[in-house]
Amino acid sequence: MRLTRHTDYSLRVLLYLGARPERLASIGEIAGAHGISKNHLMKVVQRLAEAGLVATVRGARGGLRLAREPSSINLGAVVRATEEGFELADCTHCAIAPACDLRSTLDEALRAFMKVLDGRTLEDLLGEPERLISLLEKPRRRTAARSA
Amino acid sequence: MRLTRHTDYSLRVLLYLGARPERLASIGEIAGAHGISKNHLMKVVQRLAEAGLVATVRGARGGLRLAREPSSINLGAVVRATEEGFELADCTHCAIAPACDLRSTLDEALRAFMKVLDGRTLEDLLGEPERLISLLEKPRRRTAARSA
Repeated sequence: MRLTRHTDYSLRVLLYLGARPERLASIGEIAGAHGISKNHLMKVVQRLAEAGLVATVRGARGGLRLAREPSSINLGAVVRATEEGFELADCTHCAIAPACDLRSTLDEALRAFMKVLDGRTLEDLLGEPERLISLLEKPRRRTAARSA
Repeated sequence: MRLTRHTDYSLRVLLYLGARPERLASIGEIAGAHGISKNHLMKVVQRLAEAGLVATVRGARGGLRLAREPSSINLGAVVRATEEGFELADCTHCAIAPACDLRSTLDEALRAFMKVLDGRTLEDLLGEPERLISLLEKPRRRTAARSA
């Protein structure tokens, strides 16, 4: 059982931006820090912008920032905006679905899962922003050393 | 977010066997009733047998049956035996994992999810066994009509 890669990357973008609220970040910078594809990240950022979670500042000195305070970015809302579906088992074409309680049981379990995320914000994940920043800068330092 | 196909099929096998505890079923019969691949189902049944959930009776008149009463087949235990992993996000290679609370938050949400399943058994899903049986027999009737 896992969240989609899209949700995984969305959370990483939000964590990256939340760790240093004072500056704008580029997609290339976030991709480099997390070691993930820039192309994939562009789609992720687009969806986050559409969901009102990330703001884009255009121009040569532009970049990305959170559209709201980390304390008002709810994790349940992020997962709902980024996951493509919450159908835990494929009951759509199952012959016995009308008489089987699997779907309602899984739905109940999912509600319990989401309730935990609904009670948390991005701020709760950013426990130690200074440590996060130092960890995020490591890969860039390594890249800089390699190209020197 | 979804369970693996392996878990989905495992639950369907258990539901099929639980709906008619008085008789043995073949893999082909279960595959036909659910419209899923026989090859895939063989692996599913093997894992269920290893987990002590399904018993195999060998011989010409052999087949499959539940290894225990539906009331003692816990859904949480089934999902733990059939899911390949519960790592909801891929934090293994994430640079910021040591300072980020995402993993522990997702683990907490997962515990809430599993708690619901741990409180249910196969018997709870088999709400109306007669209706289940009638639904399961439909595809076979269709096949029989086609080959007549």
